[in-house]
Amino acid sequence: MSKRLYGVDLGGTTVKMGLFDTEGNVITKWEIPTVKDHGGKHILPDIAESIKKNMTENNLSKEDVIGVGIGVPGPVDKDGVIYKAANLGWGVFSVRNTLSDLLDGIKVEAGNDANVAALGEMWKGGGKGHKNMVAVTLGTGVGGGIIIDGKILTGSTGAGGEIGHIHVEDNETESCGCGNKGCLEQYTSATGVVRLAKRRLAEDDKTSVLRDEEVNSKTVWDAVKISDSVAIEIANTFGKYLGKGLAAVAGVVNPEIFVIGGGVSKAGEILIDYIKPSYQKYVFNGSREVKFALATLGNDAGIYGAAKLVLGE
Amino acid sequence: MSKRLYGVDLGGTTVKMGLFDTEGNVITKWEIPTVKDHGGKHILPDIAESIKKNMTENNLSKEDVIGVGIGVPGPVDKDGVIYKAANLGWGVFSVRNTLSDLLDGIKVEAGNDANVAALGEMWKGGGKGHKNMVAVTLGTGVGGGIIIDGKILTGSTGAGGEIGHIHVEDNETESCGCGNKGCLEQYTSATGVVRLAKRRLAEDDKTSVLRDEEVNSKTVWDAVKISDSVAIEIANTFGKYLGKGLAAVAGVVNPEIFVIGGGVSKAGEILIDYIKPSYQKYVFNGSREVKFALATLGNDAGIYGAAKLVLGE
Repeated sequence: MSKRLYGVDLGGTTVKMGLFDTEGNVITKWEIPTVKDHGGKHILPDIAESIKKNMTENNLSKEDVIGVGIGVPGPVDKDGVIYKAANLGWGVFSVRNTLSDLLDGIKVEAGNDANVAALGEMWKGGGKGHKNMVAVTLGTGVGGGIIIDGKILTGSTGAGGEIGHIHVEDNETESCGCGNKGCLEQYTSATGVVRLAKRRLAEDDKTSVLRDEEVNSKTVWDAVKISDSVAIEIANTFGKYLGKGLAAVAGVVNPEIFVIGGGVSKAGEILIDYIKPSYQKYVFNGSREVKFALATLGNDAGIYGAAKLVLGE
Repeated sequence: MSKRLYGVDLGGTTVKMGLFDTEGNVITKWEIPTVKDHGGKHILPDIAESIKKNMTENNLSKEDVIGVGIGVPGPVDKDGVIYKAANLGWGVFSVRNTLSDLLDGIKVEAGNDANVAALGEMWKGGGKGHKNMVAVTLGTGVGGGIIIDGKILTGSTGAGGEIGHIHVEDNETESCGCGNKGCLEQYTSATGVVRLAKRRLAEDDKTSVLRDEEVNSKTVWDAVKISDSVAIEIANTFGKYLGKGLAAVAGVVNPEIFVIGGGVSKAGEILIDYIKPSYQKYVFNGSREVKFALATLGNDAGIYGAAKLVLGE
């Protein structure tokens, strides 16, 4: 029988899991709830039990399984040790060793969820075919995952790729969730887009379809698509900041490609049209030829990347 | 006989060379001129000849030499191919293979000079003991070298660590050498410091020792050390920009340490006092605990790093 892999994406409410072949094809995927009671002590046993059950169902022995990869919502070091995941009630311990013990010694690899999702997009998503990639997640916040020569850049304290807090505006008066002012996240997350929109709408009374409906990332981009001029101004401001921030990122790691995901990216390719001019304005010559693409795996990026963690480079 | 390594730092006017043991101790070092005539075609043969002569003098056979590392002034990819070094008249070719052939098959490793110098500082200089480091060179321009897990981050087109062109000021009216406006280099290189100083001095007639002498990086920092208040303002502006730029770098690669070198760094530890407050203001929490140190190898960083290239991680 061909070898198999498991990819696990541990979230705050559900655990997504997938059984893969070594080519990266999903054989089956499923979810279990994340039980956060008692300091999250049930989480890894629940995952182990669910994997063992799946192994039985698929008639897989320990020898058939190369390993289990897991993405967790917190900083994880190279040895698979998590440094607190407040969201789960977890302290500092080795996710890798603990889960491996629960799985009777099956190999486990662990990584930060955003980084692992980036690896998934490199393997089978928008970054396929590239080894030097920056994944940008425009969700509730703005996260990043940096892949260098096919491997996740973890950083010395697990804070590599925290690009949402790059400073991009000196004149900001409101604070970011992190306490600083003028972070990329304040303008380009889903809530950032709403903030930009509300600010712009409050400036004057110019006609806009956005005055008649709930303002969220989707309605803003839908308005851009029908050439609403106020929405286009908002999109330009969004693009100005994201292009500036990504130019700084390129100045550091010089990637081949940026892969844009998260809720805001559902707007589609039009997003990229608004990022590029600003990126080109601010970036150094050596990184001008970068590609931009949309993430394609959606919520499955985590399980793909977790499986890829097991395979290594 | 113990094994030996050569480190070569190829500059625009001289080639610095060193013979090392595997512990990184210099046994001997010397220089030869860089002959740039005829499209720089004599450069590598001259280097090879000089190394062979040194091998003979030190009674070293091919088997005694693990390899030769070389830092060159241009972008170099993982295969040792240089993509033009205008300064030397060179086009695109494999420095690694060409030099290895000239040395009768001795192993050669090649890297960009700034990156190689960073590796030297990690191995034996200001970054000793660290594996995740960013070297910042404040010279005529501002360069960077990024080391991740002990290895140089080259980037997809060799432009990794080009941090001098990170955008840090929206209101700049003058252009940087790269064509953009508001690059880190415009404020923190040796010429950048002079620019800041001249701008400040032109603002008003406030008394300053800088009005009585040539303004250069050294005189500015000397004035800071005797508490000249105008010089202190200049140093604050310098620190504001460098701290902001390095905070962006930390947001991407999350290093353990920044090692500051280049002519401007001759000012000493006082430089760091002016960088830190701004760095702390702009950086994301996860990278707040970074260390700052001065480079210690000066012009020898290149030969150390080149020798280290041969040893690998």
